[in-house]
Amino acid sequence: MEQKSTEISTLGEFGLIDRLTKDLPIVNKSTLRGVGDDCAVMSYPDTEVLVSTDLLVEGIHFDLTYVPLKHLGYKAAVVNFSDIYAMNGHPRQITVSLAISRRFTVEHIEELYSGIRLACEIYGVDLVGGDTTTSRSGLVISITAIGDAPKDRVVYRTGAKDTDLICVSGDLGAAYMGLQLLERERIASAGQKDFQPQFAGKEYLIERQLKPEARRDIIENLEKEGIVPTSMMDISDGLSSELMHICKDSEVGCRVYEDRIPIDYQTAVMAEELNMNLVTAAMNGGEDYELLFTVPLHCHEAIKKIPGVKVIGHCTKPELGTYLVTRDGAELQLRAQGWNPLAAEETSAQ
Amino acid sequence: MEQKSTEISTLGEFGLIDRLTKDLPIVNKSTLRGVGDDCAVMSYPDTEVLVSTDLLVEGIHFDLTYVPLKHLGYKAAVVNFSDIYAMNGHPRQITVSLAISRRFTVEHIEELYSGIRLACEIYGVDLVGGDTTTSRSGLVISITAIGDAPKDRVVYRTGAKDTDLICVSGDLGAAYMGLQLLERERIASAGQKDFQPQFAGKEYLIERQLKPEARRDIIENLEKEGIVPTSMMDISDGLSSELMHICKDSEVGCRVYEDRIPIDYQTAVMAEELNMNLVTAAMNGGEDYELLFTVPLHCHEAIKKIPGVKVIGHCTKPELGTYLVTRDGAELQLRAQGWNPLAAEETSAQ
Repeated sequence: MEQKSTEISTLGEFGLIDRLTKDLPIVNKSTLRGVGDDCAVMSYPDTEVLVSTDLLVEGIHFDLTYVPLKHLGYKAAVVNFSDIYAMNGHPRQITVSLAISRRFTVEHIEELYSGIRLACEIYGVDLVGGDTTTSRSGLVISITAIGDAPKDRVVYRTGAKDTDLICVSGDLGAAYMGLQLLERERIASAGQKDFQPQFAGKEYLIERQLKPEARRDIIENLEKEGIVPTSMMDISDGLSSELMHICKDSEVGCRVYEDRIPIDYQTAVMAEELNMNLVTAAMNGGEDYELLFTVPLHCHEAIKKIPGVKVIGHCTKPELGTYLVTRDGAELQLRAQGWNPLAAEETSAQ
Repeated sequence: MEQKSTEISTLGEFGLIDRLTKDLPIVNKSTLRGVGDDCAVMSYPDTEVLVSTDLLVEGIHFDLTYVPLKHLGYKAAVVNFSDIYAMNGHPRQITVSLAISRRFTVEHIEELYSGIRLACEIYGVDLVGGDTTTSRSGLVISITAIGDAPKDRVVYRTGAKDTDLICVSGDLGAAYMGLQLLERERIASAGQKDFQPQFAGKEYLIERQLKPEARRDIIENLEKEGIVPTSMMDISDGLSSELMHICKDSEVGCRVYEDRIPIDYQTAVMAEELNMNLVTAAMNGGEDYELLFTVPLHCHEAIKKIPGVKVIGHCTKPELGTYLVTRDGAELQLRAQGWNPLAAEETSAQ
């Protein structure tokens, strides 16, 4: 089937925006006015307002040779929702700004938008504004998410106490392994026609990399169990890096246990195949978008009732430092070697 | 004096952010938490929340051969404040996301930030978050502004009535002429050492292009005079284009009068020098960041008390169309040939 291909310049900025934002639904009562004025207008009389923003750059954060545009749009939206959940809030609105180079057609951008709109639909978020312009090279996506949380339920990074339990949702390292796998197949496919990538038995890794989900379910279950975490973050740069943030900002130390780190079977198989250290991948891999949080000791029983949450260690007094306790009882100091796009450039530069 | 030059990779993402956001003041009571968590946290119990976002791309929206980084930062912030004023609100917070290529040093980015911080200081806005990453080429700036307005004072584009007066603040076309002037001098300077640009007597044009201001004073004076405009926009794409937006969204027509369009003397001299049509420049130039608004007829006396506001015409019934009435009484249909970065690429492409 032939794909229609419309040059963006035939529509112009306003024409493109009209087409992309046609029939946008509004589902949140806090949204008073969406796309179509100088500003979006919202009302938050009873809750705190949460705002988070992310900038994704082609060639740095994504590679369109293996990332479908629809998946990219979905992920770009979801990672911002994840930041709102990480404050124990709910995302309600997003704005989407795009800079687009000439190699993209209207249909490409519609594909990207279809992923953003799908994420909005699934997570109950309204797309309320943005900006669309050209770029000299590549695609840039800037998304700002707006959310809310009742005043007494906003969770910062600063509230962990030295006797708290440390919990994570889901499993770690799979998105990173998915990236390694995609990268390996991309290299293997270079110059080959009709190349068939080898993803059998590794679908979970691919999905975690290309189409991550934000943990709304955990936020809902915490509320159901009457738990307000003392601190929380989402894991975007790797567990190790995020743990250090929480410990620094809350002025506590920590002990997390290697044998408690949740790792999926496919992640372990892939690490073996690539001859990589599995725990390093899980601790430093990044892009997991799971939640890392601390709760008071007395929440131990209630936490066990939430599916997909695991206690991986506990906080300590700050002078005891931040350590991973290995299976054989050795203590390894945590290091923030997380996924860092500014440092990463160093290694990728010629 | 030698300029210090620190590579960004020596600091990494977190180090750079720490340096840029050190000692950020918080001046608004609506700001509960600024930089340093997954989200910024705000409280707006009594007002509507306004959100606007802009994406600026090097080579499309700015040319660093003649735009100093500090001015660029200032302008990038101010144009977002302007969108909030255009809703009859006040900006309170911004987030700043940057994608930076390797040719920029830490000092460059500090220079850019100093302009953003200066704008925040002057307009009373808190810098509460953002994202910093690398780009493959050039600089990308994405700013989101958050503001507020009392529920009964938010002004949309949709409220103009067919007997309203049409008003603009300041004067038009100067920023566009400033751009032409900068462009002329850039071309003249090519390959010449110690080139001295000819800006004498044209300082106002340069300032309007490089360091525009947002019209907070107009919003404050409207409130003082007890006037709530029926519709309002800021003029970023040119008066003609914005008038058509208001007329379309409000379902009215308009007549604006050539001899009422406010134009500065320097703008007129420059148009003469460049052999350009002055009214075209004023109607379609763009980047004025003045306010265009409509008020009921009975506000005529009150409007006259506000310095820098001029009545340029009136709304009509929609079937009468949107026209500029020339000095000799001819009626020219308005056309949206505003500054459009997506269409503009067409003309600048090889």
